[in-house]
Parts: sequence; structure tokens; C-alpha cells
Amino acid sequence: MTEQLPPDVITQLRAMDPAVTPELGQATWALLTPFHEKIGYTAPRIHRDLRYGDHPRHRLDVHTADGAAGRPAPVFLFVHGGGFTGGDKHVPGTPRYDLVGAWAVRHGWVGVTMTYRLAPEHTWPSGAQDVAGAVRWIRENIAGYGGDPARIVVAGNSAGAVHVASFVTGQGGGSLDGVRGAALLSGIYQLRPPGPGEPEHAYYGPDPGPAASTLPGLPDCPVPLLFSVAERDPGPFHAQAAAVVSAWQSRHGTVPDLVWVEGHNHMSTIASLGIDETALGVPLARFVERHTEGASA
Amino acid sequence: MTEQLPPDVITQLRAMDPAVTPELGQATWALLTPFHEKIGYTAPRIHRDLRYGDHPRHRLDVHTADGAAGRPAPVFLFVHGGGFTGGDKHVPGTPRYDLVGAWAVRHGWVGVTMTYRLAPEHTWPSGAQDVAGAVRWIRENIAGYGGDPARIVVAGNSAGAVHVASFVTGQGGGSLDGVRGAALLSGIYQLRPPGPGEPEHAYYGPDPGPAASTLPGLPDCPVPLLFSVAERDPGPFHAQAAAVVSAWQSRHGTVPDLVWVEGHNHMSTIASLGIDETALGVPLARFVERHTEGASA
Repeated sequence: MTEQLPPDVITQLRAMDPAVTPELGQATWALLTPFHEKIGYTAPRIHRDLRYGDHPRHRLDVHTADGAAGRPAPVFLFVHGGGFTGGDKHVPGTPRYDLVGAWAVRHGWVGVTMTYRLAPEHTWPSGAQDVAGAVRWIRENIAGYGGDPARIVVAGNSAGAVHVASFVTGQGGGSLDGVRGAALLSGIYQLRPPGPGEPEHAYYGPDPGPAASTLPGLPDCPVPLLFSVAERDPGPFHAQAAAVVSAWQSRHGTVPDLVWVEGHNHMSTIASLGIDETALGVPLARFVERHTEGASA
Repeated sequence: MTEQLPPDVITQLRAMDPAVTPELGQATWALLTPFHEKIGYTAPRIHRDLRYGDHPRHRLDVHTADGAAGRPAPVFLFVHGGGFTGGDKHVPGTPRYDLVGAWAVRHGWVGVTMTYRLAPEHTWPSGAQDVAGAVRWIRENIAGYGGDPARIVVAGNSAGAVHVASFVTGQGGGSLDGVRGAALLSGIYQLRPPGPGEPEHAYYGPDPGPAASTLPGLPDCPVPLLFSVAERDPGPFHAQAAAVVSAWQSRHGTVPDLVWVEGHNHMSTIASLGIDETALGVPLARFVERHTEGASA
């Protein structure tokens, strides 16, 4: 459970240009995929492409252990990134993002990976609505897969973190019943309108408006939160993390649960699960375990 | 290596009044000492009360494995807390703070625990001078105990963190040669003069003055830093952590390596080493390993 990447791999990660580009994704996954292949990145059972809504992107995969379960298990729902306009829960032949389901199952939970509607066709708050839809599906169906509908933790990275933040602060409607925690990995919480000469935002449009920013609502969110930022995340993600710390401290007098993901970049943070557990996996698992202890439904 | 406290123990810790009082210390150690007794809190060999200076408090203990070492090991130096006026490296018959030496040795390092001069007899920057003195002693002597004088990480908690911060920002003089990192656990970095009716500070006197605060210097400190704050640290420690995040982000455009110690309080953070590794031990060990890799002296 405490697999760790060799120091030279971290050195290679740290040497990459941290800008969030397809090249960074390619280099990161090329470097890390062999480690996932070595430990195995698929759960014993994967139930693919279950529908949680009408749109073709309203699909999710459920990852479970083999055989009979005892007590219903906590459910770990993962929302992928991709700049609001791309990404998928499952890229066949790669660890993306079956690895997250496998990691959840290894911890004794049920894993769920979901796909959602994309910009520019679908704009704010469609992402939050889709997370709400997947959570509703989980509440109604996950018992059939050994999961506990009353013990759900939702995690997202990058655009996925934005959608999860948007969901837990109520932007997309839907119920938070059963949601015991949310993990926001390398997200953006304070939006700004495009500057002069900048294109309008594919998901938020020409003017996000104050209602789209989750920063003001996050410190009062009824769901326990974990934030993370990667050592090699570009500056804007660090600025967002610092803004969250400041807003949280102003509101609660404490800093939030923030994980600084040592040695990793914007792409490798989620890829570290299972193969570099001391970076993100250990504190994230502790967060899930803490908030899913105790009575179930 | 990944011992974890049972959830009910964390629940008991979380239920304690977080104010930093002797009662909190007593309750915390009463709760956690049995776990240390179970795993053992003494390294195979402890060399007690070696002198690093002329004052009776200029003493340190060196904690090592039994038998012959291979390559000289990294050295982990721990500076205890105690409100500047109390505390000791070793309270006989208790895990304080042999447990830190044992934790270091379990990780393959040499542990050193030190005592320093106390206020009000000894005032700022005597603590920084004493840390510098112990580090100098390590550089000159630790090879004889299997340690590598070129790979030292210094950690302190509470007043100990203040002294370590003071040392690495140059307040006490002394060389940083061989110091590869510093871990500042629940420290105070921005001082303020006593308010009306408040007693003067035992260590800083009536007016700390801007030179005593380490916050302005920490972001430019030549030594890599890890900060931690406990979930149940009182507000002022969280305010300090938030101030560090803000200052760091302003200076570097990134947030610093900050560990939020889940479920723990001001006293139990250091007590978590060895018995609740996923709280502080895992990220702290990763920090030490990262910064002590590579060439030695």
C-alpha cells in the first residue's frame, strides 16, 4: 500500500516544463504508465458504461473487488480533468483512469469513474449537474455493487475539481445526501473574466460572473473538504491554493486540509495513486477513511 | 512503518480542548504513551548527554542502530518545544523524546535530540545559537556514530520550531553547512509586541522588534523547508501557517510544503511519529529522504 516512485523518476518529473500542455501529459504518462502496469491498474471487476443520464457522456464505470462483500463499502467517485473540453473516465489500453478505481478497491472501497458533458456545447453549470447526477445514480444503485449509498466521497482533479467544487457548493443543484467528503485536486475556485485579447472561456463564456466562483462558498460548504496542489503545478494553481487557505483562515480561524503533492505536476498528481502513495495517496486515503467511518445507511 | 492510530483514539484527541496547557499535554501523553510502549520508543543504542557547549543545557542524545553501518546515514536532529521556558530532550521513563530518535533510526537515519538554554535567563537569539552549536557538534562528531555530517535535517516543534526557523534564517549565526532541510512543526514566525496588560515575553522581552520575526526571511532561506500545522492547533498557529503560505506565495508564486496534521493537536503532532505515521510521519520522512538523497560529504 505504500508503493513509492524511485527518486530518479521524481527527478525526471520535476525536470519537466510544468505548463499544462499535451506534451506534459504525454511525457508524464509515458514515464509513469510502466509503474501502473507493474502493480496492475484494473480492479478485479469493472462494470463499464452504466448510464446515469440521457446524454451520451452520462456514463460511469463501477470498480469492485471479486466475490461477496461483507458490510457495504465506502464509495469513491472520481471526476477526471481535461480543461472542460476533453478527457474521459477511460482511455482504453491505458491506466487513465481505471487506476483510480483500482486504487479505491485496494483500499476496500467501491470505485466509480464518471464522464460528463463537455464545453463548448455544454456550459456552466452542466459539470456540477452531471456530478450531481452521478451521485444520485450512486445513491440509487450502488448497493447492488456492494457500495454504501450513505458513504460517498467525491474527488476531482483540474476541471474535475472545479466541477466537484461547483457541485458541493450547490451550483448545479442536486442533493448532497450521502456525500461524506470531497477532494479537490489542483482546481480553480476563483474565476475572472477573460482579459483584453483573451478568448472567452469555453465553459464559462464571456463573463463567468461572481456566481460561478466557488471560493466564496467553499469555506461554508457542508461537506468536509481536502484540497491539494502539486509542487510542480503552474503558478495559477498555487495562487488558487493560497486563496483557499486565506479564505478558509478568515472564515474558520484555521487553515484547510491541504496536501502539497511532493515532486508531482498537474498531470502526475492523480497518476501517483497506487504507485507513489506517500505523495497523495496516503493523506487522501486517510481523509476518506476518516469521513466514512461510523454508521452507514 | 505505516502504523496508524485507531479512529476512536483520534476522536478522543479531537475532543480535547486544544488550548496549549499542561492539562492538554498530560491528557495527550496519557492517551498515546501506551501505543509507543507497544512499538517501543527507544533506538537500539542511545548515547546520552553528550556535550555540545559549556552550559548545563548544552547536551544532546545520539540514537543509533545496533551494529556496523554501511554508508554513513542521514542525521535527523530534533529540537523540543516547551514555551521557551521548559521542556527537555529526554523525560526519563517516558517516550519524550526518545521516540523521535527511535523513529529516525527505524527510517535508517541517525537521530539526535537536543536540549537548549531556556528563558527568562537566556533570551533571543540564544535558542538559535544553541541549534547552531548542536549542528556544529554534529558536523564534527557524528561520523563516529555512523552519521553523515553533510546530510543533516533539523526539525523543531512549537518553541523548537521557532528556534530552528531562527537558526536557518541566520539569527543565531553559525554555519548551515550540511543542513539539507528544516521541518518547522507548529511554530510562530511573526512576532508582535505584548498588548496592553500582557506580560512581556520571557524569551523576546518587552519588544521583539522586527529582527526577531523569521517570517520575512523564511521564503529566502537557503535551506528547504517543511511546515506543519495540526488540525487542532489553536488559532494563532493556524494564522501563522496562513501567513507563511501567503508570504511564500508572494515571493515564489507557489505555496510551501505544508502538512496539515489530521486529527492531531499541538502536543500530539510530534507524539504521532511512529504510532500514527499517516498523519505526519509519512510526509516528513518523504521530505527527509528527498533532501538527503545523493552525494554525501
